[in-house]
Amino acid sequence: MNSSKPLDLSARDAARARQAVLTKPPGSLGQLEELACRFAAWQGRACPEELRPAITVFAGDHGVTAEGVSAFPSAVTTEMVRNFSNGGAAICVLARALDARLEVVDVGVAGDVSALPIVHAKVRPGSQNLARQSAMSPAEAEAALEAGRAAARRAVEAGANLLIAGDMGIGNTTASAALICRLSGAAPEQAVGRGTGIDDAGLANKLRAVKTALARVAWENLSGQDTLAELGGLEIAAMAGFYLEGARLGVPSLVDGFIASAAALCAQSIEPSLHDWLLASHRSAETGHDLALEALRLRPLLDLGMRLGEGSGAAVCVPLLRLAVQLHNGMATFEQAGISGKSA
Amino acid sequence: MNSSKPLDLSARDAARARQAVLTKPPGSLGQLEELACRFAAWQGRACPEELRPAITVFAGDHGVTAEGVSAFPSAVTTEMVRNFSNGGAAICVLARALDARLEVVDVGVAGDVSALPIVHAKVRPGSQNLARQSAMSPAEAEAALEAGRAAARRAVEAGANLLIAGDMGIGNTTASAALICRLSGAAPEQAVGRGTGIDDAGLANKLRAVKTALARVAWENLSGQDTLAELGGLEIAAMAGFYLEGARLGVPSLVDGFIASAAALCAQSIEPSLHDWLLASHRSAETGHDLALEALRLRPLLDLGMRLGEGSGAAVCVPLLRLAVQLHNGMATFEQAGISGKSA
Repeated sequence: MNSSKPLDLSARDAARARQAVLTKPPGSLGQLEELACRFAAWQGRACPEELRPAITVFAGDHGVTAEGVSAFPSAVTTEMVRNFSNGGAAICVLARALDARLEVVDVGVAGDVSALPIVHAKVRPGSQNLARQSAMSPAEAEAALEAGRAAARRAVEAGANLLIAGDMGIGNTTASAALICRLSGAAPEQAVGRGTGIDDAGLANKLRAVKTALARVAWENLSGQDTLAELGGLEIAAMAGFYLEGARLGVPSLVDGFIASAAALCAQSIEPSLHDWLLASHRSAETGHDLALEALRLRPLLDLGMRLGEGSGAAVCVPLLRLAVQLHNGMATFEQAGISGKSA
Repeated sequence: MNSSKPLDLSARDAARARQAVLTKPPGSLGQLEELACRFAAWQGRACPEELRPAITVFAGDHGVTAEGVSAFPSAVTTEMVRNFSNGGAAICVLARALDARLEVVDVGVAGDVSALPIVHAKVRPGSQNLARQSAMSPAEAEAALEAGRAAARRAVEAGANLLIAGDMGIGNTTASAALICRLSGAAPEQAVGRGTGIDDAGLANKLRAVKTALARVAWENLSGQDTLAELGGLEIAAMAGFYLEGARLGVPSLVDGFIASAAALCAQSIEPSLHDWLLASHRSAETGHDLALEALRLRPLLDLGMRLGEGSGAAVCVPLLRLAVQLHNGMATFEQAGISGKSA
């Protein structure tokens, strides 16, 4: 049910053949060349259509904030959701600039956001404290995954051919660090960072919370979905469902930073063929993101020291992808331009 | 006469103060934050105007191709200039996508391009063979610099607030390698690469040509302009003039790759205050570009393995700069959004 659509390798090969005859030294557009070919494989067209990105920001709260793991209070999740609906957050500015569809989904905000013009799919008002107990029940994890799948279907029905999942949830770097440690084998010291900017005491709390959570399930044999339920968060589970459904429908996802990579790791552990439909956007400044990218076997395009979440790092990559496709489609071939080949 | 306009540091400080109160964890937009502040300093506005880039591609041929240093014959310079005027080259696609002004200037193409709708400022039909003699006379170098200055003035008069110089010239990675070695102290082995894709025999020719050229002037005390005349090329000198005039007029330049960095090094050695007005775009895949960037004290934004020239790497960065400015101007402040501050 989760299985990803197969890639169109003949379209990819046709795209590679085209790249070889465009008026430039072969390979001189670097990664932009292979990016265009990947879109060819995804869309099944030697010359891909223009990119129509859709951004969905999933919001949820985290019981683990009780452990003193975040620089900002949980109330900020609710306040930022309001900021999203007012158009003032970074991702709103980016979506406008990119002419991208933007949807905000409440999968688990603790505060009352019922009056806001967003998608209401609250599974529960915040996860449980994952340092002490399962973050979600199996049924809640499934409901959050389904909220993400439904969002992907809406985006694709609206015409998107590139998906971006963003996150908002005070405490979610703690859950993500726990997921990354569990799924990649990284040590907590390597994957627990300062998130929105916590001080040394908070960092110690965060490290302790992650270690306690990992110890709690250390001897359990967990599926990808179980791992999400034990150590994840509602918005993280929704992002995982979003990626899985995108791949099933044949639409690639551009993975944002630390939280998104944790979600992608969970999704990939649920369905390994997802890998073919993921593209890494940026290397986050958050500690441990490299380990998550390594575990995902993805190489990011940008390294700008960003660590904001909301899907912002992925959004910033969209113009590069668009230019890759435009170069691929719009450049003249050597034959069209009457250009001499290599000498000798 | 070359001196650069001073930066507006109070506008920069006002921009930094604004960044600190936008609805995001401080610093979480990484390099995008400081980029917006640099445009504030350049434009003298706490909230910079939208970016209006102008791209000028300077074309010229190189006598040093007689040494067998390039994978493509010199005729390709002329053919690519025709491709530029027909809109089929990478930089044409990029300029259209970015809605950027694009101008092509013949400063030294060996072939006849007089019938093409480009700017005709041919100083001479290709430089001399720099392995054997000065690439240009002092008067020719000055004329090429002036062709670049005039192009910058046209771009600024047309409304540009961001300048990009591109290059087209078979043989120009040889001249650029010689310039970078002379001005940065790098060894030829570190700065001579495969350019458009030369084979091992050609690479050996290229290395020998650069070493011979450097030895020819090793004991001479050369000014920046003398260095251009001895080891440079007509389009490289024009690019240097373009950067210098942009800085004098108070408009920053986004430096493309290997050739552009060699030109910027020459320009910076003519006028050190130019540094304040340069922004590095990408790390080229061409061997030795890192050394040039180090000598320029510039850090590139992108590392996509590009090595095409034409200004393409710089053009690809433009959307990132635009997004940096749009985020800076368009995000809500914590106060506007009613968001809680850090806890404790």
